Amino acid sequence: MGSLHADNLESISVCSQNPLQPDEFRRQGHMIIDFLADYYRDVEKYPVRSQVEPGYLRKRLPESAPYNSEPIETILQDVQKDIIPGLTHWQSPNYFAYFPSSGSIAGFLGEMLSTGFNVVGFNWMSSPAATELESIVMNWLGKMLKLPESFLFSSDGSGSSGGGVLQGTTCEAILCTLTAARDQMLNKIGRENIGKLVVYASDQTHCALQKAAQIAGINPKNFRAIATSKATNFGLSPNSLLSTILADIESGIWVHVDATYAGSACICPEFRHFIDGVEDADSFSLNAHKWFLTTLDCCCLWVKDPTALVKALPTNPEYLKNKATESKQVIDYKDWQIALSRRFRSMKLWLVLRSYGVANLRNFLRSHVKMAKQFEGLIAKDKRFEIVVPRTFAMVCFRLKPTAIFDQKLGENGQDYIVEDQTNEINQKLLESVNASGRIYMTHAVIGGIYMIRFAIGATLTEERHVNLAWKVVQEHTDAILGPLDGKLN
Amino acid sequence: MGSLHADNLESISVCSQNPLQPDEFRRQGHMIIDFLADYYRDVEKYPVRSQVEPGYLRKRLPESAPYNSEPIETILQDVQKDIIPGLTHWQSPNYFAYFPSSGSIAGFLGEMLSTGFNVVGFNWMSSPAATELESIVMNWLGKMLKLPESFLFSSDGSGSSGGGVLQGTTCEAILCTLTAARDQMLNKIGRENIGKLVVYASDQTHCALQKAAQIAGINPKNFRAIATSKATNFGLSPNSLLSTILADIESGIWVHVDATYAGSACICPEFRHFIDGVEDADSFSLNAHKWFLTTLDCCCLWVKDPTALVKALPTNPEYLKNKATESKQVIDYKDWQIALSRRFRSMKLWLVLRSYGVANLRNFLRSHVKMAKQFEGLIAKDKRFEIVVPRTFAMVCFRLKPTAIFDQKLGENGQDYIVEDQTNEINQKLLESVNASGRIYMTHAVIGGIYMIRFAIGATLTEERHVNLAWKVVQEHTDAILGPLDGKLN
Repeated sequence: MGSLHADNLESISVCSQNPLQPDEFRRQGHMIIDFLADYYRDVEKYPVRSQVEPGYLRKRLPESAPYNSEPIETILQDVQKDIIPGLTHWQSPNYFAYFPSSGSIAGFLGEMLSTGFNVVGFNWMSSPAATELESIVMNWLGKMLKLPESFLFSSDGSGSSGGGVLQGTTCEAILCTLTAARDQMLNKIGRENIGKLVVYASDQTHCALQKAAQIAGINPKNFRAIATSKATNFGLSPNSLLSTILADIESGIWVHVDATYAGSACICPEFRHFIDGVEDADSFSLNAHKWFLTTLDCCCLWVKDPTALVKALPTNPEYLKNKATESKQVIDYKDWQIALSRRFRSMKLWLVLRSYGVANLRNFLRSHVKMAKQFEGLIAKDKRFEIVVPRTFAMVCFRLKPTAIFDQKLGENGQDYIVEDQTNEINQKLLESVNASGRIYMTHAVIGGIYMIRFAIGATLTEERHVNLAWKVVQEHTDAILGPLDGKLN
Repeated sequence: MGSLHADNLESISVCSQNPLQPDEFRRQGHMIIDFLADYYRDVEKYPVRSQVEPGYLRKRLPESAPYNSEPIETILQDVQKDIIPGLTHWQSPNYFAYFPSSGSIAGFLGEMLSTGFNVVGFNWMSSPAATELESIVMNWLGKMLKLPESFLFSSDGSGSSGGGVLQGTTCEAILCTLTAARDQMLNKIGRENIGKLVVYASDQTHCALQKAAQIAGINPKNFRAIATSKATNFGLSPNSLLSTILADIESGIWVHVDATYAGSACICPEFRHFIDGVEDADSFSLNAHKWFLTTLDCCCLWVKDPTALVKALPTNPEYLKNKATESKQVIDYKDWQIALSRRFRSMKLWLVLRSYGVANLRNFLRSHVKMAKQFEGLIAKDKRFEIVVPRTFAMVCFRLKPTAIFDQKLGENGQDYIVEDQTNEINQKLLESVNASGRIYMTHAVIGGIYMIRFAIGATLTEERHVNLAWKVVQEHTDAILGPLDGKLN
């Protein structure tokens, strides 16, 4: 910019200094593209988990916003100098923590287009393409997943059908479906009975569901977390679920299938069976911003009965009334979600689907699963480690075995509970030591009292060599903690 | 891309064909920047409100996702050919509908950076810069608005203080604060008393509040919409509010001030008085993505007591536990909002604040208010029209007067209620006729039975000449409906 004059109101000639002036947009836009291309080129060099201390940025930035404008060149220098050290690099090929964050060129370009158009799209009228493209790509993706027809829009766009909507995150998707499910029941039994509603889930279900139930006014004591165990690999046992439900008196139930992480993989024929039975569910969701080359945020939600959503989440202010809505030929997505305003998220999903195509998307997912198998193979060769829960997709849960720790350090004289506690402690120490090095980043889980290290493969830039390196890093830090691996265990 | 081979899984050499390959990112990124720069250059040429019919896009796009990849060149041609005709152009200088959508270069660049980094930022650890920059810019903006200290983070980052958070939209911000307010009360009176809670608002309050109350499980019959009238310009009368509250038995109340649209203007000293009294509120929000040069979505929420939010919206799964959280020296923003995952929104707000500075941001807002005054002046010169509600910021609510319609068309013999109905009808006809032309886009409101046209100035590219043109368009369509303006009324 540079030419905006702060001290002279009258001098604002909007034309040459407009904050959206096309030539200036072009100049600065190209600058940022180069900045980000360099970032991707160099991302591997940065410590994966940020090394800064709490409060680091407050010490570097001024206490107040600048009174006058600053040039983009200065700002980008500060991004490099002050922001990048405070980033945990989710796009690094050495990032194996939390969940995949598989950004891509197409996902980024789609985001740029939707940001650039900056349409709001709460109803059809406010930008028809935003609504229609969303319905179309949600049908495309539903077909790739072989979802039952009852979850899709009918091909002639006519009346009573299911359909899909893009939400920001699973948390929002779950809250929407929970609200619809709640109201479907309250309309039968009376609103004063909200205290009687019960929500069922596995004790391994994402914390989002409990939070959604809390927001929706479900009494926390009516949230049934059904116990899972190592015997079923911590999966939900249908028998446990059935007996818990039968213990409550219910005349109807809404079933939501949350396939946040691995739902994407079900576009591969060999993984589709993991969602067998979805035809009996009421709603289904997955996050394209996890393992589907799309940037945050992009949660895909399909429901069989959109009117249940629309009834639970309606808004109909006068200023939004329009002929298209009255014609009932259009979708007004505002009533399928929490918020009124909404981003044009289908743009990035459309770009991803077209830029890569079904075939390459499958191969992308398979390449991660293949790398996870390779990592498993490396673990199996080192007798100090064990796989705690069988790997299904591209995440490996492993730990140092108790025998590795006690054979080498303490001999065989530890008591059982001490052994388990100390094993957890050493694994925790190992993880912290690895992450603090900045060379790779993994996170952890505790299930059934077992502390395990989660190695989640999903960063777009990750190649086999990064997985091999990661394993070397784990071994080096293990050596440093336990002493070098001797012959007897191997 | 182009070189991904669909038919040969083994040929995936991730390096040369990676979906984030830096050189390919650079090439395609520059292409999109040029595409968008051309879009801004040409946006004025497009019909402002999309002219397509429901279902137009389904007829143009294939029924399924492509099996093989498609090049970006083809996709961009389709964006131009199939998507742009279906857009309502919120960035057009001739866009005066709904609310301002003031995108800017800095807002766009900030979005690109945050999309490019694609960090999730649910807690401090997952990307410290995302959390710390958010706290810092929220303090900057709070100071620009002269919010009471009790809403800001303490400057040493220490314990008990207020603070700000960026939400996606006001709907989410309101739902979060309502949930906090609800639980603050339910913790006192017992969770079983949820049916007794009451929410108060003006009958002109955004429909988001009623929807939020609905989601949070408040009984719809306990939503008190307090009547407003033309006598107070449809503003909330403190006396009506007081008497309504006194009619309920309440031991405490949470007051939220929603300044979604015009809150931004309060960074100008001459407008700050509009939020006098905010020091007695519990929470305050505005949308930077409306009238503050920031792209969707970016709602700024400040609260005095963040622990009320954190208590109402907590999540604490094992896999997110980390040393930084345990140190209590950091903010984990996940518990200030609905969702767990979150975008790095402070990046765009930071870029906007620095790129333009306080002085230019004030001038930007003032330039819109000045144009609204200019538009008012044009209306005043045409006796067929009246301003229905006094203009405060940059939105003008006007209509064709009954006398204009009946003097010219029917004489003076209409009955009062017919006059009012027919006036509404003619104004509706005028608005539809103007919007259908595609030359400008405005929307409407009905308040106190009066149908009025809303002329909201806020698009970044709008200049005085667009406002003058808009008025000419309104006059031309009025002439076409009522016949040319004759001498007697002017």
